[in-house]
Amino acid sequence: MSIKVKVGQRIKELRNEIGISQEALANKAEIDRTYVTDVENGRRNISIENLEKLVNALEIPFKDFFNSPNFNK
Amino acid sequence: MSIKVKVGQRIKELRNEIGISQEALANKAEIDRTYVTDVENGRRNISIENLEKLVNALEIPFKDFFNSPNFNK
Repeated sequence: MSIKVKVGQRIKELRNEIGISQEALANKAEIDRTYVTDVENGRRNISIENLEKLVNALEIPFKDFFNSPNFNK
Repeated sequence: MSIKVKVGQRIKELRNEIGISQEALANKAEIDRTYVTDVENGRRNISIENLEKLVNALEIPFKDFFNSPNFNK
C-alpha cells in the first residue's frame, strides 16, 4: 500500500471517529473540499504543510496520527 | 516554528545520530543531495512520498520520527 493511500485512509478513519463530513474538515483546515476528497482516496501526494492543517483540524498530535498499524508494518 | 523547520531539524538530528552525511542520506533515499540540504534547512514543503523515502533511509518508523518534542508542544 502506498504512503498516499495510507495517509488517506488514516485521515478518513479519524474524520469518521470525530463524526464530521469532508466538507466540515476541509472548512476547519482551510483546504478545498475536493482536495480533501482526493487525499482521502490516496490520489494526492500531500505536502507536510497541508498535512499539518488536516492533523490540526483532526485535533490529533502528529505522532498519534502516525501511530497506526498502517504505517508501522 | 514552521512545520518545514521542524521536519528539517528532525531529519538532521536523526542523520547525525546515525552519523552519515547529507550526501550518504540522499543516496540511500534516492533523492538529490541539494533537496536534502533544502529540507534540513526548512526551505522545502516536502511531500509525504519524499518524507517516506527519508524516513525509510533513516531506518525509523513514521511514528517515532514524529515522536519528538518539536512536533508535540
